[in-house]
Amino acid sequence: MISKLNEAILRTEAPVVVGLDPNLKFIPDAVREQAFAAYGETAEGAAEAFRIFNFAIIDAIADLVPAVKPQIAMYEQFGLPGLAVFDRTVKYAQEKGLIVIGDVKRGDIGSTSESYARGHLGATQVGDTSVRGFDEDFVTVNPYLGSDGVKPFVEVAKNEDKGIFVLVKTSNPSSGELQDLMVRDAGGRERPLYEVVGGLVDAWGAECMDGDYSNVGAVVGATYPEQGRILREIMPHAVILVPGYGAQGGKGSDLKHFFHPGGLGAIVNSSRGIIAAWKEERYASYGAAGFAEASRAAVLAMKEDLRQAWA
Amino acid sequence: MISKLNEAILRTEAPVVVGLDPNLKFIPDAVREQAFAAYGETAEGAAEAFRIFNFAIIDAIADLVPAVKPQIAMYEQFGLPGLAVFDRTVKYAQEKGLIVIGDVKRGDIGSTSESYARGHLGATQVGDTSVRGFDEDFVTVNPYLGSDGVKPFVEVAKNEDKGIFVLVKTSNPSSGELQDLMVRDAGGRERPLYEVVGGLVDAWGAECMDGDYSNVGAVVGATYPEQGRILREIMPHAVILVPGYGAQGGKGSDLKHFFHPGGLGAIVNSSRGIIAAWKEERYASYGAAGFAEASRAAVLAMKEDLRQAWA
Repeated sequence: MISKLNEAILRTEAPVVVGLDPNLKFIPDAVREQAFAAYGETAEGAAEAFRIFNFAIIDAIADLVPAVKPQIAMYEQFGLPGLAVFDRTVKYAQEKGLIVIGDVKRGDIGSTSESYARGHLGATQVGDTSVRGFDEDFVTVNPYLGSDGVKPFVEVAKNEDKGIFVLVKTSNPSSGELQDLMVRDAGGRERPLYEVVGGLVDAWGAECMDGDYSNVGAVVGATYPEQGRILREIMPHAVILVPGYGAQGGKGSDLKHFFHPGGLGAIVNSSRGIIAAWKEERYASYGAAGFAEASRAAVLAMKEDLRQAWA
Repeated sequence: MISKLNEAILRTEAPVVVGLDPNLKFIPDAVREQAFAAYGETAEGAAEAFRIFNFAIIDAIADLVPAVKPQIAMYEQFGLPGLAVFDRTVKYAQEKGLIVIGDVKRGDIGSTSESYARGHLGATQVGDTSVRGFDEDFVTVNPYLGSDGVKPFVEVAKNEDKGIFVLVKTSNPSSGELQDLMVRDAGGRERPLYEVVGGLVDAWGAECMDGDYSNVGAVVGATYPEQGRILREIMPHAVILVPGYGAQGGKGSDLKHFFHPGGLGAIVNSSRGIIAAWKEERYASYGAAGFAEASRAAVLAMKEDLRQAWA
């Protein structure tokens, strides 16, 4: 799957993933009203507003980028109706030729992680039938439980030709609270915890190569470019999924260390900066009705900005 | 909410939570056949088998224990139909007077964690309506992203009188890979990572006291009793949720350090040991049709075994 993602990055000239993390505050009044007219001010109504909003944005950006990344928490907040729209968003994006990274940050002990992996990337046997769950192409995985929490995802990814991105150094302000702690590794050397996790990602990924890169990638925040440089070296075969660009403060020129020469090795996410572009002054001319076209313009601007990092 | 849990522990004389982690392998043929007859060998059929199985076990054990802990991964593997039965299981258990700990191990950056917290413990505003999601009483939370990933859960727990259990030292064999690494803490002292996380749990919990304990608890595996002793001291106000009893190898006599004198301070989970008791030789006399009664007998045996730890 990672080779498919890399091909799509080269084809679109865009190491860009659009984060589909809708929020009722980002959704134009007219869309909300249309959804509430059909379903009322209910979880179903909120979910329907997300669906209309997402589908319009997918239509507007599908030819420009390789992938989208729906953040499942935004859907899960509305319970089952929200998750039904997460599911429909995954499938609609795939129908439009986009690769889907489910930002689910799951992780548990062995057999339980295996259930998550089957539910998001693979299939479960029910009698004589093989049943697929949400069926994203990649998911994000939390490593706190160690190898036996991550390897079930690696196994399913290998068997299904899918992929994972393991949280290594996250983009949020307090990510350093645990991730930056200086630890003594197996060899007795002191280094930050995120480097140890980076080493594990490299080892897990060796079992799961797909072309020059592994189906096991890593999450490293745009907000920590210096750590990105070191992690790029520690994980030579991992594609780095880079959140924190734009609204969280990262800029294109900060990101060159995340990429290999030649332009592969990383994919940069922007969520609010794209899907809520219509609320920004620079895209005000699109108006609320032009929210999807504003997101298209924001993608084009992001692609231009990122050329400094990878072209 | 933690005081309600402690009252229920004292009333039932059972620091016990029954893990509702169904697996088609644990479900008697007759139940599976009944479900497949109604829905076919589909995700809906598997979910219906879980529902029948869970409801029967809840009916059989509701008067014996304070709480159940459905593991959402087992349901999520079947996508939306599975999650619909997770939802029904939560609500059915609550109707029967049980406290529900959603074993969801969620965790993300700030506003995203807030969405998870609202979706599982709180409510989200949709126009003039306040919409509740899965509405468990407690959830488990992954701390890898640091304070700004955990505090949104603490806030929602405080406002809703609900609670969380933060993963500190998990029960799985490779939990030590990251959690046991020796780190240099803020004061320059070397200690294992799980102790640092334990210290954070104590600090987060101080904002959220409810009687003698905090609504912020911790997960520490039964398989690591020595670490349990140390963490009990580091987190004096945290109730410790203890997985790994029974099938994973922990025994009642190993667990006394998890409790305070007087019997509170911990709640021990057993999943397979209870819900799949009918498959064990010692409960074979119940037969497949008596699976729920076998789970009742296994709960009674577990309560007896745990008296060594806390009575």
